[in-house]
Amino acid sequence: MHLAVLTGGGDVPGLNPAIKAIVTEATARGWTVTGFRRGWAGPLNYNPNDPDGSSDWIAGLRPSVVRHIDRTGGTVLHTTRTNPSNVRRAELPAFLEPNYPMPDGTESVDCTAHVLAVLSTLKIDVLIAIGGDDTLSYAARLHDEGVPTMCIPKTMDNDVFGTDYCIGFSTCVNRSVDFINRLRTPAGSHERFLVVEMFGRNSGESALITGYLADVDRTLIAEVPVDIDKVARLLSEDRARNSSNYAIVVVSEGASLKGGDVIESGEADAFGHRKLGGIGPTVGNALKSRTGVDVMVQNLAYLVRAGNPDAMDLMVGRNFGTMAVQLIADGKTGLMTAIQDGRYTTEPADISTRGARSVDVQSMYDAEAYRPRIAEVSGMPMFLK
Amino acid sequence: MHLAVLTGGGDVPGLNPAIKAIVTEATARGWTVTGFRRGWAGPLNYNPNDPDGSSDWIAGLRPSVVRHIDRTGGTVLHTTRTNPSNVRRAELPAFLEPNYPMPDGTESVDCTAHVLAVLSTLKIDVLIAIGGDDTLSYAARLHDEGVPTMCIPKTMDNDVFGTDYCIGFSTCVNRSVDFINRLRTPAGSHERFLVVEMFGRNSGESALITGYLADVDRTLIAEVPVDIDKVARLLSEDRARNSSNYAIVVVSEGASLKGGDVIESGEADAFGHRKLGGIGPTVGNALKSRTGVDVMVQNLAYLVRAGNPDAMDLMVGRNFGTMAVQLIADGKTGLMTAIQDGRYTTEPADISTRGARSVDVQSMYDAEAYRPRIAEVSGMPMFLK
Amino acid sequence: MHLAVLTGGGDVPGLNPAIKAIVTEATARGWTVTGFRRGWAGPLNYNPNDPDGSSDWIAGLRPSVVRHIDRTGGTVLHTTRTNPSNVRRAELPAFLEPNYPMPDGTESVDCTAHVLAVLSTLKIDVLIAIGGDDTLSYAARLHDEGVPTMCIPKTMDNDVFGTDYCIGFSTCVNRSVDFINRLRTPAGSHERFLVVEMFGRNSGESALITGYLADVDRTLIAEVPVDIDKVARLLSEDRARNSSNYAIVVVSEGASLKGGDVIESGEADAFGHRKLGGIGPTVGNALKSRTGVDVMVQNLAYLVRAGNPDAMDLMVGRNFGTMAVQLIADGKTGLMTAIQDGRYTTEPADISTRGARSVDVQSMYDAEAYRPRIAEVSGMPMFLK
Amino acid sequence: MHLAVLTGGGDVPGLNPAIKAIVTEATARGWTVTGFRRGWAGPLNYNPNDPDGSSDWIAGLRPSVVRHIDRTGGTVLHTTRTNPSNVRRAELPAFLEPNYPMPDGTESVDCTAHVLAVLSTLKIDVLIAIGGDDTLSYAARLHDEGVPTMCIPKTMDNDVFGTDYCIGFSTCVNRSVDFINRLRTPAGSHERFLVVEMFGRNSGESALITGYLADVDRTLIAEVPVDIDKVARLLSEDRARNSSNYAIVVVSEGASLKGGDVIESGEADAFGHRKLGGIGPTVGNALKSRTGVDVMVQNLAYLVRAGNPDAMDLMVGRNFGTMAVQLIADGKTGLMTAIQDGRYTTEPADISTRGARSVDVQSMYDAEAYRPRIAEVSGMPMFLK
Repeated sequence: MHLAVLTGGGDVPGLNPAIKAIVTEATARGWTVTGFRRGWAGPLNYNPNDPDGSSDWIAGLRPSVVRHIDRTGGTVLHTTRTNPSNVRRAELPAFLEPNYPMPDGTESVDCTAHVLAVLSTLKIDVLIAIGGDDTLSYAARLHDEGVPTMCIPKTMDNDVFGTDYCIGFSTCVNRSVDFINRLRTPAGSHERFLVVEMFGRNSGESALITGYLADVDRTLIAEVPVDIDKVARLLSEDRARNSSNYAIVVVSEGASLKGGDVIESGEADAFGHRKLGGIGPTVGNALKSRTGVDVMVQNLAYLVRAGNPDAMDLMVGRNFGTMAVQLIADGKTGLMTAIQDGRYTTEPADISTRGARSVDVQSMYDAEAYRPRIAEVSGMPMFLK
Repeated sequence: MHLAVLTGGGDVPGLNPAIKAIVTEATARGWTVTGFRRGWAGPLNYNPNDPDGSSDWIAGLRPSVVRHIDRTGGTVLHTTRTNPSNVRRAELPAFLEPNYPMPDGTESVDCTAHVLAVLSTLKIDVLIAIGGDDTLSYAARLHDEGVPTMCIPKTMDNDVFGTDYCIGFSTCVNRSVDFINRLRTPAGSHERFLVVEMFGRNSGESALITGYLADVDRTLIAEVPVDIDKVARLLSEDRARNSSNYAIVVVSEGASLKGGDVIESGEADAFGHRKLGGIGPTVGNALKSRTGVDVMVQNLAYLVRAGNPDAMDLMVGRNFGTMAVQLIADGKTGLMTAIQDGRYTTEPADISTRGARSVDVQSMYDAEAYRPRIAEVSGMPMFLK
Repeated sequence: MHLAVLTGGGDVPGLNPAIKAIVTEATARGWTVTGFRRGWAGPLNYNPNDPDGSSDWIAGLRPSVVRHIDRTGGTVLHTTRTNPSNVRRAELPAFLEPNYPMPDGTESVDCTAHVLAVLSTLKIDVLIAIGGDDTLSYAARLHDEGVPTMCIPKTMDNDVFGTDYCIGFSTCVNRSVDFINRLRTPAGSHERFLVVEMFGRNSGESALITGYLADVDRTLIAEVPVDIDKVARLLSEDRARNSSNYAIVVVSEGASLKGGDVIESGEADAFGHRKLGGIGPTVGNALKSRTGVDVMVQNLAYLVRAGNPDAMDLMVGRNFGTMAVQLIADGKTGLMTAIQDGRYTTEPADISTRGARSVDVQSMYDAEAYRPRIAEVSGMPMFLK
Repeated sequence: MHLAVLTGGGDVPGLNPAIKAIVTEATARGWTVTGFRRGWAGPLNYNPNDPDGSSDWIAGLRPSVVRHIDRTGGTVLHTTRTNPSNVRRAELPAFLEPNYPMPDGTESVDCTAHVLAVLSTLKIDVLIAIGGDDTLSYAARLHDEGVPTMCIPKTMDNDVFGTDYCIGFSTCVNRSVDFINRLRTPAGSHERFLVVEMFGRNSGESALITGYLADVDRTLIAEVPVDIDKVARLLSEDRARNSSNYAIVVVSEGASLKGGDVIESGEADAFGHRKLGGIGPTVGNALKSRTGVDVMVQNLAYLVRAGNPDAMDLMVGRNFGTMAVQLIADGKTGLMTAIQDGRYTTEPADISTRGARSVDVQSMYDAEAYRPRIAEVSGMPMFLK
C-alpha cells in the first residue's frame, strides 16, 4: 500500500504529530508513505515527465525522518492555500501552460486532470489530506473523481463543519489565555482598557472560549454586531469594580460594530481574502473617545498558532493520524476523521462542505452583556464546542 | 440559599476556577457561600460554641474575594485528607474530646454527629465537596445522613470512578510532556537512559498518557508487572536506533517489577499511605547493572500539579462549578458532576465508591512492548480515558 | 526615617521586586515606607487638607503587603507619565485650580510648590523614584529643590543614560527571543518573510539584542536608515539559503526607511508622543511588493513587558531597591543606582538628563548587512550594552 | 586554519550557541571546523589508522549543520567526563590496548601521546575545549604539550575559577526560580514545609542565588554546616508568619548537617563521584520529626539544565564562541575566555586549576539566619557572583 499525505491552509500546532502517526502506523504495516509538499501545490507542480526536477514537491517519509517532528509546531511538509480546481495564472506551473491555456478574461483553470495523472503516476493508493474547509473540499472532489481519500480536519478557529474538534484549537486557546493573563500586568499598572484582538474571520469561537477561560470582562464575537456605546459603558463599570482599575475586552477579527462593516484593511490577497485586522484599533479608538480612558491594543495574531502543540493537540493530532491508517487498513476511505459526542468517529469526506460552524449564541453567549454565558452546562460537550 | 464548599485531598490546578464559578453563579442568584477551610477538617474543627475561635476554619466567599483566584493553581481554601468518619487521636480537636472519648485501643472515632451539628448551626442548605475518592465518599455519607450535597471530582491521576475526566489531569499531562521533552537535551547529550518517575499509586493512566504524548520509548504502568530484563533489552535497542543514542522510559509510581513488590520507602503517613517513591531509582539501578549504560533518574513529583491550570482544567473546573450551582438551582442534590461520552452529566453522589478506575490494558497498552498502543482509535473517548 | 517610593513611566517586570526590597530593608531598620500611587500623579493629587479624600493616592507599605509582589510583573503602586513641572489642564486636580490658574493660551503649569508641600506634610525624609528619563528627571529637579531623593532606572529599552542596565530589559529580550523562535513554525510552514516589530522609539537596542540572540536574518534599528530595496534583496537571499525557505527581519519601532520618515500613526497622546507603530506593516508591504513573497507581520507590542520578571530583573530590581536603602542608611541621597563595568555603583541623580543612550553602531552593527556584528567581543560588557 | 572543538562534562543550555558561533565565525574567515564527539573521548577513540571506523568520533561542522542548533539546549557534539590523562581500563579503546598495557594494580593510564598523534594526523591548528574544571584542565595540559588551545568555561554551578560567569548558570537560576514559584501552590494548599533540593556538590552558589531570587524562607548551602534544630525553629516561625501557612527551604546537594556528613548515597561512579543526593529527604525527615509539620521534598535535579538556553546563556555562549575565534585570528591561544568586572576578557588556559570558587559567605550569606544577605550591594558584580 502506498499512501500520500499533504497539509493545506494555515499551519497549526498538531500537524506534525498527525504526519508522524501516519508514517509510524503505515510503516508498521509494511506500507510506504510519500508526502506532497506545500499542500495541493505539491501534486499541481509535480511533473511526471520530470521526476528529478520535481523532487522539491514530494518527500519520502520514513520513521527516521519523522522521529522528532511531533515536538514542534507547524508542518514539515509546508503548506499553501492552493486549490487545483481553481488555479490562477500566477500559480500555474510553466510545464502545464500548454495543457491549460488561459485566454484573456480567464481567472483560473481546473487542473484536476493533471492531479489525477500525478497520483496515478506515483501509484498512490490512498491520499490523506490534512486541512481546513478549503483543503478538505478539494479532497472530497478527488474522492468524487475516484481517488480514495481520507480527510483530517485542522483549524485554529475550530470551524470545520462535521467535527466538534479540529487540530490546533486547544493550543490556540491555551496560548491566548496565557497571553491575556500576562497582559494584566501592564493593563493594571496603567489602569487602562486592554483590547485583545484574535484571528477568527467567520467564527468567534476561539475568541469566545478564550474570553471565557481568561474570564475577561467582555468578549466581542463575529456572530453578534457590537453596540460600541453600550460596550464602552459596560467596560467603564467593569473597570470601576476592579480593585486594580482596568478592564479587558477580547475582540474577534470578524466582529463588526453595529451600523458599521467588518473592518477590513489592505488589499485582497490572491485568494480573495482581504486582511481583516483593524477591528482591534477601531474598538480601541472608539473606547478612548467615548470614555477618555487610555487603551492598550494587542493583536495576538500569529503567536497563538506558533510554537509546539499542547497535550490536546498532540493527542488529537496523533489519534487522527493513527485512525486514518487504521481505517484505510480496514478498507475504508472517503471519510473525514472527526470527534462527536466526545468520541473519535468518522463522517463522509465532503461533510465540511455541507455547512458552516459558528458559535451557538443562544446557548453560549449573552448578547446583552457581551460575554460568554453557558445557559446550561449539563449536556454540553466537554470543551463547549 | 446558603452554600458551603470545601476542597479535600491533594491539590491540583483547576480547583480555584471551580470555587470561583460556584461563588459567581451563587452570588448572581442572590445566594451566599461559605468556604470550609482545609477540607473536612474545616467542619470537624468548627466549634459552634466558639464561632470567634473557629474563624480560621471558615471563609466568607464573595466575588471580590475570588476575582483573580482562577489564574492560580492550588486551592485558596487549602486542603487536607481528614475524614470525619475516621478521626484519629491526633486529629481530634480538643473541644470534641469530651464528646468522643477514645479508650485505649481505639484507633479512630466517627465525628459525623458533630459535622451534622456544624452544618445545622451554620444553616448550610447544600454542601459542595471537591475532591477525589476519599473526600467524595464522605460527602456521599453525609448525603445518606440527609445533608444535601454535590460532588465535584478532581485528581491528577484521573482515577475517580464514574467520570471520564477529573480536574487536574490535563495540566498534569501537559506539564509532564513538556518536562520530558526538555529532558531530552541532557539525556541525548550524555547518551544515557532517562528514567522519568511520575506519581500514580493505583492507576498508571497519567504515566500512560504522558508516555503516549511525549512518545517516549517505553512506559511502565501500575497495571502490568515489569520484566526488567526485557525492558532493559528493549531500551538498549531503542537507544541504538535513536540517532542521538538515548532512550526514555516513563515509570508510574505504582509500577512493580515481576517477582518483586511495589517499591515503598519510608513510614506510612497518618492515613496509612506509605510513600511509594523508589521505583525510579530501582528501575534506574536495574537498567545500569544489566546494560552498563549510565542512567539519569528524574522524579517529576509535585511539579506536575504545581502552578496555574491549563485551558482544559480552567474549562472543566469552571464548568463543574457552574453546573453544581445550576443543578442546585433546579432542586437537584446528591449528585456528582461528571463527564461521560464527551458531555457534562451527573452521577449519584456515591458513584466514586462503587468501583475503581484503572487503565484498560487490553485497548490501550501493549504489555509485550511496554508501551501505549491504541487498538482502535475509532470509538475511543477524545482524551483516551 | 520615613521613605516614600513611586514608580513612573511604562511598567516593566522587575518594579515590584524593587518595591519589595525597599520595604523589606527599610522595615528591618525600623523605618516606615509610604508609596505614592500612579507615579508623580500621586503627590500631585494628594490634598494635604483632605487626607481622607486623598487615600487613593498613597499606600502604606509593610512587609505583609509586599510579601508576594516580587513574583509578578507590573507595579502594585501603578504608574503614569505625569510630570508635576509640566501639568496640563486635564491633569490638574480640582483642588489645585485656585493655586494654579491657567489663563487662555497656557499649556501647562509647574506644580512643584505643591509637591514640596505634600512631601513636607507627610514628613517624607527621602523620596525614591523608580522610572525612566522622564520620571527621574523630575526627581532630580526635586533634589535641586532640596528634597533628598534616590533614583532607580528602569526601561524595557535599556535607554537611561548613565547606567549599563535598566530594570526590565532582560525580561523584554528573553520574551522576544522566545516569541521569535516560536514564530519560526508558521513562517517556515508557509515559507514567508516574517516581520517582527518591537517597541523602541529612540533606541534600537532591544531590537538589536533580540535580533542578535534569536539570530534572525536581518535587524533594522532606529539608528540606521533602511534601504528597503537592499533589505529586500538580502532577505530573498537569506530565504533561499534557508532549507526551510523563510527569513525573519526584526524591526525597531523607531526605524525609518531611507528617504522616508519615521512611521507615525494616530494622534499624539497627551504627552506629545505620537504612536509610532506602522513600521512593521510598512516594511511588510514593501517587501511583498518588491519580492512577491508573502509576508507575516507580528507586533510583539506589550507582550514583551507583560508577565513576571526573569532572573536578571528579579536580581537587579531587588538589588537596586536594597542598595537605595543601604545608601540612604549611609546618609547618601541625590543619587541614581546604576550598573557600570558590571558592578553596582551610583551616579548623580540628574545623570539621566545629561545624555542619551543609543546603539553604538560602530562596534555592534553592520550597517551594510543590516545586522548585529560585534567587532571585538573582548572588552565589551557582558550583555553588550 | 583548521579548528577542532569539543564539549566535556555535564551538558548545559548554551553550549550549542557557542558551537554555532565558532563555526559561523571560522567559516566567515575561510577556516574549517571539525568537532570531536563526546568530549575528550573523541580524540581518545579516534584511530588514525582507521579513519572510516572512527567516523563516529568526529563531525564536520559547517554553517548548514549548525544553523538551528542555538535554539536547543545540550550539545550536538555530545559529552562525556573522560580525561585522557587518566583513562581507566573500561574506557581504553581496544586499538590502544597494545600501546597502553595495564598491568594488574594499574588503575589508569595517560593516553596523551595518542591524543597528540590524533591532533597531528587531523592537522588541527587550534583546539577549542568547552567545559568545566575537569575538561579545561586537560586542555591546559595539552597546551603545555605544545598544542594551541582555547578554553571556554561552562557549568550550571558557575564554579569555574577565573571567571565571574560560566555558560549555563543563568538558565539554571531562571528555571529554578520558576519551579519554586510554581511549587508554592501545593506547598500553600497543604500548609507544609517544602524542601527543594538542587545540584551543587562543592559550591552552593546556584542554591544561594536561586533562594535569593525566589525569596524563599531559608537556603542551606555547601559552605555552611546546618544546625537543623535551629533551621526547624526558623522555618516554623516563617510558616506561622506566612498568611498561607507554608515555608520553603532550598537545599544545596553539597550541604551537610552539623555533626553529620555530606549525605551520599549509592556507589561511586566511574570517576569517583558518589551521588550525593539524599540531603533533601534527610532535611525533610528531620524537619518533620522536629516539628510534626508535613513536608514535601522536590529534587529539581536535571530539570534545571534541560531545555533551551535563556537570553543570558545565548548571549554568553555566542560571545565566548565568537571571541575564541577572534582571539585565534589575532594569533592568541593558551587562553580561557572569561568575564570579569562585567566585561569579556581572557585568562591563561590553566586558570581554572589554580583555585576553587565558592560562595563568599561573609559578603553574601547570613550564617545565623541561613539565608542570603548582601552586606553591601554597591560594588558587587551585577549577578552577585
